[in-house]
Amino acid sequence: MKKYTYNTEVRQQLDIILKRSESDQQDVRTTVLDIIDRVKSEGDRALKDYEEKFDHCKLDSLKVTPEEIDRAFSETDPALIETIKRSAENIRNFHEHQKETTWTIHPKDGITLGQHITPIDRVGVYVPGGKAAYPSTVLMDTIPAVVAGVDTIVMVTPPDASGNINQNILCAAKIAGVTEIYKVGGAQAIAALAYGTETIAPVNKIVGPGNIFVATAKKEVFGKVAIDMIAGPSEVCVVADSTANPVYIAADLLSQAEHDEMAMPVLVTTDDKLADQVIAEIDRQIDTDLRRKAIAKASVTDHGFVFVCDNLDDAFELTNQIAPEHLELAIDNSEKYLDCVRNAGAIFLGMYSPEPLGDYYAGPNHTLPTSGTAKFSSPLGVYDFIKRSSIIQYDRDNLKAAADDITAFAYSEGLDAHAKSIERRFSNDA
Amino acid sequence: MKKYTYNTEVRQQLDIILKRSESDQQDVRTTVLDIIDRVKSEGDRALKDYEEKFDHCKLDSLKVTPEEIDRAFSETDPALIETIKRSAENIRNFHEHQKETTWTIHPKDGITLGQHITPIDRVGVYVPGGKAAYPSTVLMDTIPAVVAGVDTIVMVTPPDASGNINQNILCAAKIAGVTEIYKVGGAQAIAALAYGTETIAPVNKIVGPGNIFVATAKKEVFGKVAIDMIAGPSEVCVVADSTANPVYIAADLLSQAEHDEMAMPVLVTTDDKLADQVIAEIDRQIDTDLRRKAIAKASVTDHGFVFVCDNLDDAFELTNQIAPEHLELAIDNSEKYLDCVRNAGAIFLGMYSPEPLGDYYAGPNHTLPTSGTAKFSSPLGVYDFIKRSSIIQYDRDNLKAAADDITAFAYSEGLDAHAKSIERRFSNDA
Repeated sequence: MKKYTYNTEVRQQLDIILKRSESDQQDVRTTVLDIIDRVKSEGDRALKDYEEKFDHCKLDSLKVTPEEIDRAFSETDPALIETIKRSAENIRNFHEHQKETTWTIHPKDGITLGQHITPIDRVGVYVPGGKAAYPSTVLMDTIPAVVAGVDTIVMVTPPDASGNINQNILCAAKIAGVTEIYKVGGAQAIAALAYGTETIAPVNKIVGPGNIFVATAKKEVFGKVAIDMIAGPSEVCVVADSTANPVYIAADLLSQAEHDEMAMPVLVTTDDKLADQVIAEIDRQIDTDLRRKAIAKASVTDHGFVFVCDNLDDAFELTNQIAPEHLELAIDNSEKYLDCVRNAGAIFLGMYSPEPLGDYYAGPNHTLPTSGTAKFSSPLGVYDFIKRSSIIQYDRDNLKAAADDITAFAYSEGLDAHAKSIERRFSNDA
Repeated sequence: MKKYTYNTEVRQQLDIILKRSESDQQDVRTTVLDIIDRVKSEGDRALKDYEEKFDHCKLDSLKVTPEEIDRAFSETDPALIETIKRSAENIRNFHEHQKETTWTIHPKDGITLGQHITPIDRVGVYVPGGKAAYPSTVLMDTIPAVVAGVDTIVMVTPPDASGNINQNILCAAKIAGVTEIYKVGGAQAIAALAYGTETIAPVNKIVGPGNIFVATAKKEVFGKVAIDMIAGPSEVCVVADSTANPVYIAADLLSQAEHDEMAMPVLVTTDDKLADQVIAEIDRQIDTDLRRKAIAKASVTDHGFVFVCDNLDDAFELTNQIAPEHLELAIDNSEKYLDCVRNAGAIFLGMYSPEPLGDYYAGPNHTLPTSGTAKFSSPLGVYDFIKRSSIIQYDRDNLKAAADDITAFAYSEGLDAHAKSIERRFSNDA
């Protein structure tokens, strides 16, 4: 962990210190465009060829059968299935509060205005394979769509070399409410979801994390379909005062660090002594038996930061500039500081709300804005799976009363036919 | 207007008939990437060079002064200013209903979950110059941001060769609540908003329509900043039964056609006789004194369609496939059919709710999803200018009760440090 005193110089150099770089990979884009073109022209044939090439798997059929899902349930620890179900229930309950309904207002007699809410028809959920196959993410990406009322939720995920999908992923998909599952990953899966093939009908929106090929493909098909944000490395920022427990903070920073060598664990504190305690505690904890110790070490060393601030005002100024994916407030009376937070994906309050509680269990979504995008975007939610349509209804008298304003505005913009659409309705009036 | 009977063949060929093509312009992208790179490295210098090159305008200063705004007000027809103010008030009143507030819930004693709402700090609004300089769009793109509580709204728009901005645009900007205005357009303006220059501080989100260079630049900076949807040609779809008035329908289709040679006016009707009446009426009305007659003719001829359906069920099936930007329901008891609409940007009900009422005056936004994107996106609204942050707070007892589920889930995903962040909080418990 690199330690800085938060001063004017650090304030100005913050972007350089954090090194949250944009990826600009022209070679990846060329490959991805080729894959998209081939899937558009050759459909399933291209998907099967790419699965053989990239996942070393010869597939007769892309679709996961009900028998494969039944087998996954029979081979999975029943206790884990119950855990997944309890987590799914918490996620569902929280997201129910995000539902919106159609509303209308009547500013005057004879005028109705409003907002008509409808779910997206078809949604695609991308789920990575291999070690990054996380059933928790299947729940988080699918359940908001189910709550929104989406009719068809299509999951795509790469198979292993034997043509199988991780059994926990299949169980989570069934529990969450996925309606169709296909064995295809990478840019070819994104192309299939956007343009359709003989087997996979196209969707209207694609969500879910993936590697650089998946992310680039999502960016390319954006516009043809909607996508969620492009996810960068995971991040946690802990804001701590002298009342915080360095053992807990170190553990929480490490839980983020183990995700990815590029993950960013950050401590922002008003207490220089605590800063040193946390740094020492990380060194101690990282040498226990973590399966992903090497990853956590790389993250902490290359992307771990401690900032010591004069006061909490500075701490929140810095935190709002960082706009972290996860923000833990390990400060006394943490809930009183909620209004100091302008930019964060999820806010964890107090010493018994560590980030893994949100990753797995509490209910709010764990698909969150990274790389500072919390400055303009939000956790995945029910609002991402609905559309709004405006409603406008005027009666004759109200349109007539508005006619002069509308025609004056239209003529001022040079749009005569706009004005005439109003005038023709009243041309026989005296 | 090309006339089709809506049958199985037309159903299958719909995308080909409508020809709403995707633009794929590699040469434009190369130019735009060069412009973005130069603005990133050279800042204001690059902006001024590009303004001289593209808009033939030598600028000393990019920023519009308060004196220029005062002059615009003194030179504009006071009646038009009052029209713009009344329109702005209607837009503001409608969008106030879209405001969201922070909420929390308490699923159990000792647990708080919720959603914290904050406005985006800084927003950029792109306004095209020349003939497409529409003050109504300035109102529509700015007022939702003002209602959301956005602190700084930066408008960019290309100047004419003398370095001036259209006076109606300046008046609308002031009335709407724009906080800063800069004389710069094209891809260079988008680059400046995304990356900042000496004069223009970077924003978090960019909205507003533009030509292919502006749209391509917005797509390129997406991820670094948020953007609204890439707007395609404007569209209207009128669903009409035998009670509809062909004179009004023709006028409304023409009001859309005059926007752009690529604009798409569509009639979907259950009455073959009405179809022919509307076609004849368009021929008659188009030969009146419209300033944009040639544009309207091209749109009607190349992109105008009439579909005759057996019944309203088929009419709505077709309409939902088209997912039009504007949908007029010119049918008896139109409000009863609202639930038949699944995909549309704005829905105009009845014979006295023509589309220009929504473009200029009623209050709902006129920045709407085009090219079928109403299948997954919504009108511009207050929701586009806020972010949500999840709130999670557990006390000790509740975290302890959840500990087994969280650690089981974490270990199943191979994320040991996630589990330990929970375990370390209870490791001294008996």
